[in-house]
Amino acid sequence: MKKVVIVGHKNPDTDSIVSAIAVQELLSALGFEAQARRAGETNNETKFILNDLCIAMPELITSVNDDESIVLVDHNEQSQSFDQLDFSKVSQVIDHHKLSIKTENPIYCRVEPIGSTASLVAKMFFENKLEIAPATAKLLMSGILSDTLNMTSPTTTPEDRALLDELNKTAKIDVDSFVAEMFKAKSSLAGISIEDIIRIDYKTFEMGKHSVGIGTWETTLPESVNEKKDEIMQALIHEKEAVKMDYIFFMVVDILKQNCQMYLVGEKESELAKEIFAGKTEDGMMFLPGVVSRKKQIVPQLTEALSK
Amino acid sequence: MKKVVIVGHKNPDTDSIVSAIAVQELLSALGFEAQARRAGETNNETKFILNDLCIAMPELITSVNDDESIVLVDHNEQSQSFDQLDFSKVSQVIDHHKLSIKTENPIYCRVEPIGSTASLVAKMFFENKLEIAPATAKLLMSGILSDTLNMTSPTTTPEDRALLDELNKTAKIDVDSFVAEMFKAKSSLAGISIEDIIRIDYKTFEMGKHSVGIGTWETTLPESVNEKKDEIMQALIHEKEAVKMDYIFFMVVDILKQNCQMYLVGEKESELAKEIFAGKTEDGMMFLPGVVSRKKQIVPQLTEALSK
Repeated sequence: MKKVVIVGHKNPDTDSIVSAIAVQELLSALGFEAQARRAGETNNETKFILNDLCIAMPELITSVNDDESIVLVDHNEQSQSFDQLDFSKVSQVIDHHKLSIKTENPIYCRVEPIGSTASLVAKMFFENKLEIAPATAKLLMSGILSDTLNMTSPTTTPEDRALLDELNKTAKIDVDSFVAEMFKAKSSLAGISIEDIIRIDYKTFEMGKHSVGIGTWETTLPESVNEKKDEIMQALIHEKEAVKMDYIFFMVVDILKQNCQMYLVGEKESELAKEIFAGKTEDGMMFLPGVVSRKKQIVPQLTEALSK
Repeated sequence: MKKVVIVGHKNPDTDSIVSAIAVQELLSALGFEAQARRAGETNNETKFILNDLCIAMPELITSVNDDESIVLVDHNEQSQSFDQLDFSKVSQVIDHHKLSIKTENPIYCRVEPIGSTASLVAKMFFENKLEIAPATAKLLMSGILSDTLNMTSPTTTPEDRALLDELNKTAKIDVDSFVAEMFKAKSSLAGISIEDIIRIDYKTFEMGKHSVGIGTWETTLPESVNEKKDEIMQALIHEKEAVKMDYIFFMVVDILKQNCQMYLVGEKESELAKEIFAGKTEDGMMFLPGVVSRKKQIVPQLTEALSK
């Protein structure tokens, strides 16, 4: 039997964790010996969802055995993976981000411009005519709702809505009240340090010849984070120096009012942000109305500017 | 309506052409305004198949309009594409080769380690519960049969067999006699110049810091090609110099006896081939029993050696 380890990106978000768990179920049904893992500490939203469903948190990945291959979910960029991961062992990619991985041999790659990896996993369950347990349906719904910010992010597609509805025929939940609970958990700062705030949803990118780190904090209560701005700025500057990044950005996203405050830690970041985004800047933060998606509204624009 | 142009690789083989035609049908059914194109001259096998089915040969691609995006079939490597193709316009990839494309935004990417792109396209028809016309079924079967060398290539998977059988429920053809006709057409040298022999199934690869060209001639009559060896060698040396390749190889594949003669045009090629493949060499040709697949038995081995 083919052994696979399924893992999402470092600083895992809800989509990365629930997709790994659901893919474990999908691949087990398709005859694999599959194990979901996580590539770091999880956030309060993800903990709430797994707790709510009485599903165990996947174990932290520490290594991959010689007889196992790797299934990447929700990312395909080496710099976003668990550090010791040998990319030559990747046998499958299931993702909704830009393509970055190069392989020496043909592998299974399923990437679509869809709102969440969970949407794609749901689609694969339906395509393979596999029965979805109600808990798995709710799990996948939570990934869709989290990554699309309850269908408001510009990354949302009509297919995400259709899949959510289809899953809810099995899960039968009150979506609005579940989302409210998810977002409350996401916004909670209980047990969250300043370092956690920048690290919990942090990704690095290679853009042209530059390395760029972008942290995100999605919340219904932006002021709870913004009042810690000075400490967060210090931590960002420290992180940037410690890992020798060329640029570091941090976005506080208001998921109800649909806007973002982008923290600009230095001259380089300020100049680049002013060149591209043209938002109003005050106290080292640029206000960007309507901007909620790192993937769609920040990364392509920065990549283009830094690749010139 | 979204306009897409579907195109396979340069020096198109049967799989590249029939997949483009079938994807045109698939995407049209899914609501796209889709047009299949070809990226070069086609071989005698492909001409036989389209002629047999009274299906028009796709037009040669010359440019892509601003309102059109590109669907790549059967390749995802820039160097294998039509020269003027702007890869930033690629919106979909449907392929069964190693991953090479990088994108700035998420795109639709469906790549699987399966015997042919046609197999994957057939799978997508079934997944989307679309009706397949008998002619399309036969067209897809011809892609599967051609790329898997009638299910004998090491790239063949159980899924290819299952899909072939499923398609034949609609096409209802005598597979053995159809394959015999296909292979007869493939082996025909009618109207084929020396330049055509090396160019008709020729691909270039970036391996480490080296550019490598590999031509293939699949035939039931290897002696008909091998008797032109000296002229072919001259043409290969000329091609290598003209386009400044670091290495050039040419494989005459006996699709019945399942072996290959690899033409070694110079010292560099001889040394590299001896290091990796250890076949018996005579008169500038290395005999490789059991080797029929460039993708599985040649490219990964060369890439590994040249990436050291």
